[in-house]
Amino acid sequence: MKKIQEIIENIHSRYMDLNAGSPATYIPELAKANPADFGISVMTVEGEVFSTGCAKKEFTLQSTSKPFIYGMALEEQGREFIRSRVGVEPTGEAFNSIVEMERKTNHPYNPMINSGAIAISSFIKGNNLSDKLQRVLGVFSAYAGRELRIDGDVFDSEKKTAHRNRAIAHLLRHFEVIDDRIDEALDLYFNQCSILASVEDLSVMAATLANRGVNPKTQKQVLKSDYVGDVLSLMFSCGMYDSSGEWAYTVGIPAKSGVSGAIFGVVPGELGVAVYSPSIDSKGHSIRGLKVFEDLSRECGLSIFRLTRGL
Amino acid sequence: MKKIQEIIENIHSRYMDLNAGSPATYIPELAKANPADFGISVMTVEGEVFSTGCAKKEFTLQSTSKPFIYGMALEEQGREFIRSRVGVEPTGEAFNSIVEMERKTNHPYNPMINSGAIAISSFIKGNNLSDKLQRVLGVFSAYAGRELRIDGDVFDSEKKTAHRNRAIAHLLRHFEVIDDRIDEALDLYFNQCSILASVEDLSVMAATLANRGVNPKTQKQVLKSDYVGDVLSLMFSCGMYDSSGEWAYTVGIPAKSGVSGAIFGVVPGELGVAVYSPSIDSKGHSIRGLKVFEDLSRECGLSIFRLTRGL
Amino acid sequence: MKKIQEIIENIHSRYMDLNAGSPATYIPELAKANPADFGISVMTVEGEVFSTGCAKKEFTLQSTSKPFIYGMALEEQGREFIRSRVGVEPTGEAFNSIVEMERKTNHPYNPMINSGAIAISSFIKGNNLSDKLQRVLGVFSAYAGRELRIDGDVFDSEKKTAHRNRAIAHLLRHFEVIDDRIDEALDLYFNQCSILASVEDLSVMAATLANRGVNPKTQKQVLKSDYVGDVLSLMFSCGMYDSSGEWAYTVGIPAKSGVSGAIFGVVPGELGVAVYSPSIDSKGHSIRGLKVFEDLSRECGLSIFRLTRGL
Amino acid sequence: MKKIQEIIENIHSRYMDLNAGSPATYIPELAKANPADFGISVMTVEGEVFSTGCAKKEFTLQSTSKPFIYGMALEEQGREFIRSRVGVEPTGEAFNSIVEMERKTNHPYNPMINSGAIAISSFIKGNNLSDKLQRVLGVFSAYAGRELRIDGDVFDSEKKTAHRNRAIAHLLRHFEVIDDRIDEALDLYFNQCSILASVEDLSVMAATLANRGVNPKTQKQVLKSDYVGDVLSLMFSCGMYDSSGEWAYTVGIPAKSGVSGAIFGVVPGELGVAVYSPSIDSKGHSIRGLKVFEDLSRECGLSIFRLTRGL
Repeated sequence: MKKIQEIIENIHSRYMDLNAGSPATYIPELAKANPADFGISVMTVEGEVFSTGCAKKEFTLQSTSKPFIYGMALEEQGREFIRSRVGVEPTGEAFNSIVEMERKTNHPYNPMINSGAIAISSFIKGNNLSDKLQRVLGVFSAYAGRELRIDGDVFDSEKKTAHRNRAIAHLLRHFEVIDDRIDEALDLYFNQCSILASVEDLSVMAATLANRGVNPKTQKQVLKSDYVGDVLSLMFSCGMYDSSGEWAYTVGIPAKSGVSGAIFGVVPGELGVAVYSPSIDSKGHSIRGLKVFEDLSRECGLSIFRLTRGL
Repeated sequence: MKKIQEIIENIHSRYMDLNAGSPATYIPELAKANPADFGISVMTVEGEVFSTGCAKKEFTLQSTSKPFIYGMALEEQGREFIRSRVGVEPTGEAFNSIVEMERKTNHPYNPMINSGAIAISSFIKGNNLSDKLQRVLGVFSAYAGRELRIDGDVFDSEKKTAHRNRAIAHLLRHFEVIDDRIDEALDLYFNQCSILASVEDLSVMAATLANRGVNPKTQKQVLKSDYVGDVLSLMFSCGMYDSSGEWAYTVGIPAKSGVSGAIFGVVPGELGVAVYSPSIDSKGHSIRGLKVFEDLSRECGLSIFRLTRGL
Repeated sequence: MKKIQEIIENIHSRYMDLNAGSPATYIPELAKANPADFGISVMTVEGEVFSTGCAKKEFTLQSTSKPFIYGMALEEQGREFIRSRVGVEPTGEAFNSIVEMERKTNHPYNPMINSGAIAISSFIKGNNLSDKLQRVLGVFSAYAGRELRIDGDVFDSEKKTAHRNRAIAHLLRHFEVIDDRIDEALDLYFNQCSILASVEDLSVMAATLANRGVNPKTQKQVLKSDYVGDVLSLMFSCGMYDSSGEWAYTVGIPAKSGVSGAIFGVVPGELGVAVYSPSIDSKGHSIRGLKVFEDLSRECGLSIFRLTRGL
Repeated sequence: MKKIQEIIENIHSRYMDLNAGSPATYIPELAKANPADFGISVMTVEGEVFSTGCAKKEFTLQSTSKPFIYGMALEEQGREFIRSRVGVEPTGEAFNSIVEMERKTNHPYNPMINSGAIAISSFIKGNNLSDKLQRVLGVFSAYAGRELRIDGDVFDSEKKTAHRNRAIAHLLRHFEVIDDRIDEALDLYFNQCSILASVEDLSVMAATLANRGVNPKTQKQVLKSDYVGDVLSLMFSCGMYDSSGEWAYTVGIPAKSGVSGAIFGVVPGELGVAVYSPSIDSKGHSIRGLKVFEDLSRECGLSIFRLTRGL
């Protein structure tokens, strides 16, 4: 298994000098990220960890939080309730689009885009925001195997500038997907996006999904195994937004990307992978991240449509 | 392995009395199909076959031909050429839509919808239509492991009524995706759609994809193993049109459906499944076919996102 | 001129028994309207008034307020400022659509749909909401030639249920069409929609536009004559939402409709017409109102594309 | 009336040196036009003609033929037949778009865009193409008051490159708007687009519409007066494609533009105006033509929403 360490180190040095793109600017706090930061972590379902680069540096999860909160909502509300309010189809549109909701379904296409994720946040149980937030942090910490916390500055920055997300939330209320607690749903959503984790944490979280919901580090069942397939399926179909087809074709594993520059992927039954590097492309994906996954998938045969593993 | 035979017989009797929908009417010849016809076949990569119902009854392949012709074009023209002319993204639109081509990309979204498949047909090499057709029939016959032939009546019926497909072809020419041989491309496309096969044939064709391109019956390499992942990935992302997300979520295997009432699915490394029953729903999928795949996937754990097989 | 009185009385009795549709339900307070209410008023630029039915019964202006507030904003901010933020093209979409803003222009298509009208309200000058509201009420009262007031119950009802309008306002903020005073813009908009007027008032307001901005009753210049053409042109192109083309074809005069069941039209240089009857069709137009305008236009040759007047 | 001559000469010299844009390239033959060509003609309903620049130079009518053929079809088939197959709403899309037909109505939005005009051509009566063409040429010649002819080179060029129009025609057949004589409809359409006229001819044709269908030169009734309103209304709503709203706002008269660089406008009851200059903008409008109409409308108060004429 030394091979994995060698492979990710090679890929890391291959793309260290790739200086395309720049950190997300639409949330001012994210624009402060250091474009040189670049970390890769792999965790197997047996619990082995392989890391290179800034593997301990924390960043906010942003949209990489969506699969985990979706799994949590499935456990709390059941499949039927969630399916009746949020679809499972890719949109062919950008991550923050509202066109498809307006044009066709009158509910979000899937839980991996903003409209779906805001709806999902509104379904988390709890008496009030602080109660809900405690429980959400608890679940994310269980995925990571250590206590995670919120970046208050990013949360504030996000909340202040989220005009489009506010528009989406009011439209969700209009279509009666969510109830009147619009601000609470948004605040929980901004909080979940602002959870801090390192690329090593994220690889543990990914490995937990690869391991039928059991954290390989702590051996705790974080998500009922019955719902792991739901989460992986949605990540696969919709996790990379309007380049999900491209990703399925070139990488071929369930994955999720966030505008902070994180991408994580799951090879079911085998391992979790996470990459962090803050410079993103026009679709919001980490540029180095895309490269790492393409190479890793090709070199190790990770695609679920390839039948031989290179590992 | 008796289990498979038992399972498909149970499912067959479960849905034999399901009389929803009716055969496709937009191609007059297809409307003559018998709604009572219902066959299921499974072939493993080891070459074992399990069948129930009218497993030998022939029907025209229609859109189930698309993955095979796509693989053939990949071998003939190479990945780069094909990728530059036909995308790999799901559309979120119906199988015969032209909106997304017009609105956004000026080329077809993927090879599993009509616009993409007509373009793919135009890329098949050959001096003339008859030459190309011979070669196409040769490849399809190799997939099936026996000589297949064209249903001339369906071909005529299709050709006469294909106003929308003609519109698509002229738009493809307008966007310079295809060259001036518009009628030749359409004729080849109508021919490939009119190839006759039984549900047992289709399970062999599916098993060939499951077996890295090697026909388990004849042991011939029909598609270079390097391209099998391309075909399976596109089937998975786009094979079930605008219900591809739903299919990924509930069934979870690469599959392709055709308006004649056929659906086939591939469990990579394990088996091919085919179902035929001509009554279709509003999206063009065999109604009994959808039910069979849902039950089979759940009962046997076929989904690539579930980690335990029930077989 | 007895002829006008006779014509509108004939039309009134022709459609008195037409009981299709029902009052708008999406604002609960509007649903209380009496479907039997039906009034028609015509005022010439010379100041003669012809009325029939419930001509004095008050209703809220709703979207019929949009042309007047647009004229007010033009006077306050100038043509260039307004044009840089709100377009002049019809949308081909419903009155409350946001698709076209999202898809194409990133600003409202025109001031006659909700997105444009909310933006226009945000441009009205004033130190605070109450200040702005006073000035708006002053202008509307000048148009009517008597003091108008707000229906507080409709305002409350509207404000409480306007989830889609809130979504629109946040999207306008996102695209930087409006500034941070989102709630103030919405409150002013809800207030202007809740101004009470009778069908006779509305015919005076219409006649003021027909009379180059001079109220024929009071002889006061309510809108600078230079801006009257702007308002009439926008009413003509966009006033009847996605049936503006149909209206231009069958009626052929600048007009504006509101979901309370009011429609008013302007025959430039000649007269203003207003109809009120609260039962509306699926596009939000008064059903009796449409009939009255079609007949009146045909019988009196009102269309600007017909060259002979029947009056 | 010397004033008109003076005004158009001033405007002509004002824009003679405006060298923006270039002639249409998508029909190769049109690309040969001389960008320096620039003519303006005005004809009053009394039959007076005012011209400046290359007023006798012939060009092909292209889309400026659409209003005349629409009027002809109305006379031949009646309003009801035409209305049931072609709408009267602006599209908000480009002149050659098919999106709106696909998305919404399954028939063309209006007779001023390509899809509507091709449908209209298919409705012209006649035993065969040559018969129909004779009758069409007859009507256009009657509008111009002299015998017009076809530019065979432009017709050939158009026919050979019209892949998008062919796509549109097949889609019209698919939606059963037109019958099986697809090629005949297209050939008639390409012919009508290839009719040669000068800017002076076009001003006579425009003046005929301004004069209730009576050619002011020949005093012949070319279009029944009852249908003149239909044609003018559609020109007004839809004649300038997706800048129809802008045109209504800045110019304010019924008009039609063609990619050969011609625009003509109608001031009902007063006069017809035509401008020719082949360099066009991205929407297909003559760049000098737009300028001429804006200035002429402002200087002479031509807008139907302005109440005083400057003439």
